[in-house]
Amino acid sequence: MAESQWQEFDGKRYAGGRASEPRDLGWMRGAPPPADKRITFESDAFYDFPQIRWTLSHAREIAPTASIWRGNGTPSRLERAEAKGDVDALAFSDLNGTQRRFDEALYDTYTDGIVVLHRGRIVYERYFGELQDHVPHSCFSITKSYAATLCAALVHEGVLDADKTIPHYLPEMGGSAFGDAPLRLVMDMQTGLDYTEVYADRTSSIWEYARAAGLRPRPPGYAGATFVTDYLPKLRKQGEHGQAFAYKTVNTEVMSWVMARVTGRSLVQLLHERLWAPLGCEEDGYIIVDPAGTPMGGGGLSATLRDLARFGELMRREGDWHGKQVVPAAVVHDTQRGDSPAKFAKAGYTLLPGYSYRNMWWVTHNELDAFEGRGIHGQRLYVAPKAEMVIARFASHPVAASSANDPITLPQFLALGRMLK
Amino acid sequence: MAESQWQEFDGKRYAGGRASEPRDLGWMRGAPPPADKRITFESDAFYDFPQIRWTLSHAREIAPTASIWRGNGTPSRLERAEAKGDVDALAFSDLNGTQRRFDEALYDTYTDGIVVLHRGRIVYERYFGELQDHVPHSCFSITKSYAATLCAALVHEGVLDADKTIPHYLPEMGGSAFGDAPLRLVMDMQTGLDYTEVYADRTSSIWEYARAAGLRPRPPGYAGATFVTDYLPKLRKQGEHGQAFAYKTVNTEVMSWVMARVTGRSLVQLLHERLWAPLGCEEDGYIIVDPAGTPMGGGGLSATLRDLARFGELMRREGDWHGKQVVPAAVVHDTQRGDSPAKFAKAGYTLLPGYSYRNMWWVTHNELDAFEGRGIHGQRLYVAPKAEMVIARFASHPVAASSANDPITLPQFLALGRMLK
Repeated sequence: MAESQWQEFDGKRYAGGRASEPRDLGWMRGAPPPADKRITFESDAFYDFPQIRWTLSHAREIAPTASIWRGNGTPSRLERAEAKGDVDALAFSDLNGTQRRFDEALYDTYTDGIVVLHRGRIVYERYFGELQDHVPHSCFSITKSYAATLCAALVHEGVLDADKTIPHYLPEMGGSAFGDAPLRLVMDMQTGLDYTEVYADRTSSIWEYARAAGLRPRPPGYAGATFVTDYLPKLRKQGEHGQAFAYKTVNTEVMSWVMARVTGRSLVQLLHERLWAPLGCEEDGYIIVDPAGTPMGGGGLSATLRDLARFGELMRREGDWHGKQVVPAAVVHDTQRGDSPAKFAKAGYTLLPGYSYRNMWWVTHNELDAFEGRGIHGQRLYVAPKAEMVIARFASHPVAASSANDPITLPQFLALGRMLK
Repeated sequence: MAESQWQEFDGKRYAGGRASEPRDLGWMRGAPPPADKRITFESDAFYDFPQIRWTLSHAREIAPTASIWRGNGTPSRLERAEAKGDVDALAFSDLNGTQRRFDEALYDTYTDGIVVLHRGRIVYERYFGELQDHVPHSCFSITKSYAATLCAALVHEGVLDADKTIPHYLPEMGGSAFGDAPLRLVMDMQTGLDYTEVYADRTSSIWEYARAAGLRPRPPGYAGATFVTDYLPKLRKQGEHGQAFAYKTVNTEVMSWVMARVTGRSLVQLLHERLWAPLGCEEDGYIIVDPAGTPMGGGGLSATLRDLARFGELMRREGDWHGKQVVPAAVVHDTQRGDSPAKFAKAGYTLLPGYSYRNMWWVTHNELDAFEGRGIHGQRLYVAPKAEMVIARFASHPVAASSANDPITLPQFLALGRMLK
């Protein structure tokens, strides 16, 4: 049952979770780090494996970022009801039928840290590699769940109208794919876009977006868009809106842009005022900004594991935080109810049968009524109301596709929920 | 006595302190900011006036940075003994003989914020423009005073030997200007270097350093050093070491490199462990890192005004912080005693008669026994033991030379010290 030194994904071999521990490998150690242990923006290898095991706990050291201030109050207290032994020893069967232990599976999924809350108390908390309890880690697309939850709250408050099309708020988007897209479909990623998001394919549109946003180095003579709100109006339509779920990060950027334009507040300010401060987060978060200063709502957030868990706990408590309604309960209910599994099925996620996608959360419709924030390379915020459980898990998995760790992670989290239920 | 709308320096006219308020001018406002109100790294105009009035409160948004963690303790309390009216109305004569009021002089020096402590209590605190009490601001060369104070502590503890030459610690520096330079002379900037530091001259060596450190954009086809520890060994000697004070930022980079190599801890870790955490700072600080991850000890630090004031207060209390010796008293005494005014005089600072330079502090030898951390564009940490006073002042003055605001600032701070004495 012990972890093998090597793991294989899509026919490629990778050092395992223990063998790729970044301190042991010497990444960015020394003054200066030796050339072959240096991780720089220019190299464009910062998200390659095994460098990524260092990078995801240090995003601000390679890119410009804006601070999400926690405010100056005392952090909210997370009580403890430690159950480490029981959780560690929990046995489960992965989707391939292999028997695993909870603790060993953390290495096999390249976990950087995990916090489990049960009834709001920490029952399990571990850190690996570069991550520490006070260090923010890349959330990648869990950023979307934060942003869209705030957007849904603004809709609930009447600040935004989800039925309005994007150009109602952003006239400059009139000629783009979003010209006839209502905000509601953008929030649920049901737009028809001539845009692909395949990280393994270097010709995929996602790279064009990343270069525009300044998230990736630009080749000499680069003539593309130089910031994200310059790129978005260039997007063209493909197919019809509202037919199917199609996961495309640019939807979140458009949504965040609408929020910023209408409220006059950047996503950084909204996250501070509406989540970080009222939740009593322990540490400031931060978010990558593009060269025009726009916070990357599609995936730029870094937060500590406990602060991520606080957000999950807020959702589990239907938006109530110790007597204060921080997010409208209706927004949480709407998220939990999810959307059409039939529209979701068209996207072809064979590992996520019966799921739907709502307000940029992945809704399992499973026995725990769980819904998830999901980010590439293994980021997860798993909210399981029927188990009164929240799991926040950061990882730096070699493969930029959730399918690489879902066969272990999905049954692992479900088994824990069943145990705690 | 009111501020004029325009000010003139070296024959150039600039909008005054009030007229250049960045919010009013609309810098980086809007989603996205309009093209003519955008401040980007690539433009290389982020430190130009009036953009600089925004940039110095937002350095992390244009460059990669590392966090200086405050720790998870309660911030240390700064008591208040407000004396705003008295301080505002304080009259003084500037070095040109113009009569001024304290409050108006703040605008005339493009002040972003000022905190005055008297006997450890806040008697005066104001913020302008982009700066807020929880927002870190660029310290520029006050960074040096932080770094060298820690270096002097390491010497005091015997971790470093100030008489050893640099190659004793950094063999790769053997062929450079620092090949025969003892650490002591580096700490006091008495090295003889073929290196100029004139911000107004775009051919000055300081720009080569800045490009190597990634602090400035690199022209297409750039073939110079790509990180700071690659640049430093290339420096050549000019004249002899130990003859004169010569202010050159590369000394601090060499010193910081020695500290990191010997302690195995980066400047970020040292600042956290030895200052931010023990002082109970209110907010995390941060420091710009070069493309190899090296923190820029020469000028990369950003801190809040109150946390800067805490460091000044620590020095005023001879290293004692509420009963704990955070910095050895001997280090503070050695700093206060200063060095040779004769060697200092050779550097030609006509506005700073009788000064010396020790442990990267500017020692006034004036009636208040004051010593200063000084950073371009008006950053000041003025510690005046005989007045039991500390002034922390951030500014974004149009001119990158202290001489531009010294004619006002020096008599202004001295007058306040005399009033509080």
